[in-house]
Amino acid sequence: MTRLFNEPSQFADELVKGFVAANSQWVRPVAGGVVRRAPTVEGQTAVVVGGGSGHYPAFGGIVGPGLAHGAAMGNLFASPSAQQVHSVAVAAENRGGVLLTFGNYAGDVLNFATAEARLNSEGIVTRTVVVTDDISSAPVGQEHKRRGIAGDLTVFKAAAAAAEAGYSLDEVVRVATEANDRTRSIGVAFSGCTLPGQTEPLFTVPAGRMAVGMGIHGEPGIAETDVPTANELAELLVSSLLAELPPSIATAQDARAAVILNGLGSVKYEELFVVYGRVAELLEAAGITVVEPEVGELVTSFDMAGVSLTLFWLNDELEGFWRAGADTPAYKKGRVGSPSSASTAASTADTQSFAEADRLTLAAETAASLPTELPDSSDASRDAALAIADAIEAIAEVIDEHADELGRIDAVAGDGDHGIGMQRGSRAAATAARSAALNGAGALSALSLAGDAWADRAGGTSGALWGLALQSVGAALGNTTEVTGSAVATGVSDAVSGIQSFGKAVVGDKTMVDAMVPFTERLSREVNAGGDLVTSWRAAAEVATAAAAGTADLLPRMGRARPHAEKSLGTPDAGAHSFALIVVRVGEVLASRHSEFA
Amino acid sequence: MTRLFNEPSQFADELVKGFVAANSQWVRPVAGGVVRRAPTVEGQTAVVVGGGSGHYPAFGGIVGPGLAHGAAMGNLFASPSAQQVHSVAVAAENRGGVLLTFGNYAGDVLNFATAEARLNSEGIVTRTVVVTDDISSAPVGQEHKRRGIAGDLTVFKAAAAAAEAGYSLDEVVRVATEANDRTRSIGVAFSGCTLPGQTEPLFTVPAGRMAVGMGIHGEPGIAETDVPTANELAELLVSSLLAELPPSIATAQDARAAVILNGLGSVKYEELFVVYGRVAELLEAAGITVVEPEVGELVTSFDMAGVSLTLFWLNDELEGFWRAGADTPAYKKGRVGSPSSASTAASTADTQSFAEADRLTLAAETAASLPTELPDSSDASRDAALAIADAIEAIAEVIDEHADELGRIDAVAGDGDHGIGMQRGSRAAATAARSAALNGAGALSALSLAGDAWADRAGGTSGALWGLALQSVGAALGNTTEVTGSAVATGVSDAVSGIQSFGKAVVGDKTMVDAMVPFTERLSREVNAGGDLVTSWRAAAEVATAAAAGTADLLPRMGRARPHAEKSLGTPDAGAHSFALIVVRVGEVLASRHSEFA
Repeated sequence: MTRLFNEPSQFADELVKGFVAANSQWVRPVAGGVVRRAPTVEGQTAVVVGGGSGHYPAFGGIVGPGLAHGAAMGNLFASPSAQQVHSVAVAAENRGGVLLTFGNYAGDVLNFATAEARLNSEGIVTRTVVVTDDISSAPVGQEHKRRGIAGDLTVFKAAAAAAEAGYSLDEVVRVATEANDRTRSIGVAFSGCTLPGQTEPLFTVPAGRMAVGMGIHGEPGIAETDVPTANELAELLVSSLLAELPPSIATAQDARAAVILNGLGSVKYEELFVVYGRVAELLEAAGITVVEPEVGELVTSFDMAGVSLTLFWLNDELEGFWRAGADTPAYKKGRVGSPSSASTAASTADTQSFAEADRLTLAAETAASLPTELPDSSDASRDAALAIADAIEAIAEVIDEHADELGRIDAVAGDGDHGIGMQRGSRAAATAARSAALNGAGALSALSLAGDAWADRAGGTSGALWGLALQSVGAALGNTTEVTGSAVATGVSDAVSGIQSFGKAVVGDKTMVDAMVPFTERLSREVNAGGDLVTSWRAAAEVATAAAAGTADLLPRMGRARPHAEKSLGTPDAGAHSFALIVVRVGEVLASRHSEFA
Repeated sequence: MTRLFNEPSQFADELVKGFVAANSQWVRPVAGGVVRRAPTVEGQTAVVVGGGSGHYPAFGGIVGPGLAHGAAMGNLFASPSAQQVHSVAVAAENRGGVLLTFGNYAGDVLNFATAEARLNSEGIVTRTVVVTDDISSAPVGQEHKRRGIAGDLTVFKAAAAAAEAGYSLDEVVRVATEANDRTRSIGVAFSGCTLPGQTEPLFTVPAGRMAVGMGIHGEPGIAETDVPTANELAELLVSSLLAELPPSIATAQDARAAVILNGLGSVKYEELFVVYGRVAELLEAAGITVVEPEVGELVTSFDMAGVSLTLFWLNDELEGFWRAGADTPAYKKGRVGSPSSASTAASTADTQSFAEADRLTLAAETAASLPTELPDSSDASRDAALAIADAIEAIAEVIDEHADELGRIDAVAGDGDHGIGMQRGSRAAATAARSAALNGAGALSALSLAGDAWADRAGGTSGALWGLALQSVGAALGNTTEVTGSAVATGVSDAVSGIQSFGKAVVGDKTMVDAMVPFTERLSREVNAGGDLVTSWRAAAEVATAAAAGTADLLPRMGRARPHAEKSLGTPDAGAHSFALIVVRVGEVLASRHSEFA
């Protein structure tokens, strides 16, 4: 929702004022909107865009060299008036005529047409190209009825680059028309925005549902589905656009396209990138060369939750215009006046590095599980390593089973990532331990590689601490000595000392240390009193479970992962809880495998 | 909330993959994060940044010439592991040493320190500067305990520009340390984000409240207040930062500062600009020269609703580094390697154009109300113009009284802006009509100027239509003829014809035409039957009111402003409703002023 405003009826004026104050390197204010700070070159076609406010960077945010010469900035979601359009066009024009270009909405068509007539009657030669990229808004054969959404950018950019290249108004109109003919978008929405001063959203989509084809002002879509996964959404968007190639494109195979994956406001960059990863794969699989894609917020609707995908099918001329430089408040690329390192080689490099990213992610996932030169080890230690691999697999299983719960309780007092971090870390550790054990590693090697993998894949504080714990236990067990209860108890004790020294937490801070300290104390006492490892471990695990539950009554230690001290009373610490779950499960594995342990 | 993901535990990897696929012009993937596509220049200090994911463009989005050489990209809200940091640093370094720089959070400090030790032990000279800009997170005297938020960018940018300029590692450390010492931020939050796969937000702020000083992961703030106006928020943020100048700045007067007004995710650009307008005024009033401000999303927290203000107090050296070019996926300015038109003149120009924006807004507001050359008019027509000014003022009043209601019912079937648009239009028209009448305008001139003002200030479809309506009535009344009921009826009838021809709506489309057509029919019939204007008008107004209420049963005409056909049954059309309200109120004015009308 829109929270920050003064008088709602002044919002549009005030945003223009603040926008100009922040961006005076690029724009200067005129009645009705903004124009470039530098005057239009004499004889150059002036490209004047515009529409309602609330869609930043559309429309003021894309005024500057290489893009629009001026933007008429209307009220919120309302067309600029004909006077505004006229005023901006007069300020932008410099004996090269004016192209008016904007998205196809009734109010805009009406007001821009009035302005166009007035400009022509005053001797300023003016023409119009309306953007109609949204395939959901009218069927094939009625393309002229379609709304304009993020395809505004491809049409504006092509027209402006043509103007910058010295094309006449007629030629700029031809380029803009061709760009529009070759641009197709489809959008989805999850929730609507709330305008300044309103208490209810402009439109809503039921929770957990997605409106396919809904417009940027909430215009009705063509279907409603459950919210899909990121990959499923990518597949829906790509397949919809590939099902309607422009007439000039015979087949997607070997075609080139500029791609815009646009966020409407509160679907954020991270989500867009996850979706884009799959979009890129699908376009590559269809044989399409992607040229300088854009993933971000380019045409928004306040904080509407929505996404659109635009494909701009290129020919040589349009590719040059897409690659050309631009320097505006919100859209910058390369250097104005020359294509930004335009070459097919660059496109190929894009594709290559995409595959490269995939390969490196895989490599990172498996790197820790590939021991190269293993130190010598005894038979007993190698047997122990196999049992250790079982134990760490059991850890990964118990964490998987409890991942949601861990995330939930961590969200009360921490940053909510404990479940995911532990999942990633324990899975990586299990893979590494298994691979090491199968390759003949002793206990030390297996635990050391598993600890590395845990810390690396989990990251964060708990990842570093669990990595350290596995390595400490490994150091106590060695690769050649017998695995005794006493050695395990020593290793656990060393791990706890190391963790306390590294992480600076003490008992009572509401961290995993609250469960670890009583665990190790009980384990050492039992083992020193002559208890066998399995019995001693299980007794210690019971103590850890009780101690973890007891953290519910503690106030947390302050620090990054502890935002909500006051809220967390009554909820146990996620780190202590996961520690207890792990030692209980490991106790079960030890019991089932006790022949390997003395 | 985060809606688009596949397996939550894979989210961080998948976002890196998609990010790299979209931005391979700038970055290439390495284990643990990304580095610049082009190798680091031999001997240049490598600036390696990093932190948890979920804060895009921090941290991968700011890798490229002029900014970071590499970014370690951790899991969601979790520090990168020491291995990740190490791997990225090794890939970025090229015989010039490494600066590790990141925000001050426990997990990051722990993992970067481990990586630093390992790099140094391997002979890669590595040093660390931790960013601590958030003044809410610890008091003066304990600056080293403060968290790093959007000030990350000023410190990273200064350090990277120094590295680009050939500074040694020690010098880069000095610059980064000085930049951190001169950077102060404060943030506020309205709501928290929901991580992928979680059903509950990580933290919440009560509805209508604002947490002052809350951190980007929901760390507790220093106060909670009601949500302020945009201006009040600007005042809070600026006064908080001016209350704690860095030791090196004796007084704000004549100081220079780079400014970042940062959105955390779902406080959108329009709101940020409204706030920034006031921030700029306040900084100017304090005697501070603002240098190349940034208003946008630079350090986010998924879709958290929050804002932070950063002041980076410049000296000559740091100003040069702030102005220097950068070319990264999400942060681009000027040309890399040379300051971007750095000069004090540019700063002065910023301030001037800010005043200029203000002046132009005011000018636009009053332009229509300043008749220059009025045509001749009769006494009777001038008297009528005064009554017309009363009537239009009454229109502005009735619209003010009903603005919320109009916005609400327009939100059901339209785009929710009807109340605001009508408010702006009618206020501007009232001012114009009054000014014209006081300057001796006749009825035609007064209505014509009022109509221009309405269309210009309201924009949108309804603005254009009401502007046309006032002009049509004016044309029928003239400047010299007597104002008769018959002339008024003719003018209204012309207005309705014009609106239907211009807007293409017919009765039954659920638009204002549904109320206008029966109104004008009844008015003409009464007047033609010899009725006086006041009685005839009031009878027609009753018909209009009934017709407007009847639009509740209609399905709307489709088009831009009609997104929700299905939802609007049972709600009247906002345009028809406001028309009825207006004609009723004008009837009251006519009744009280009937001496002016025949």
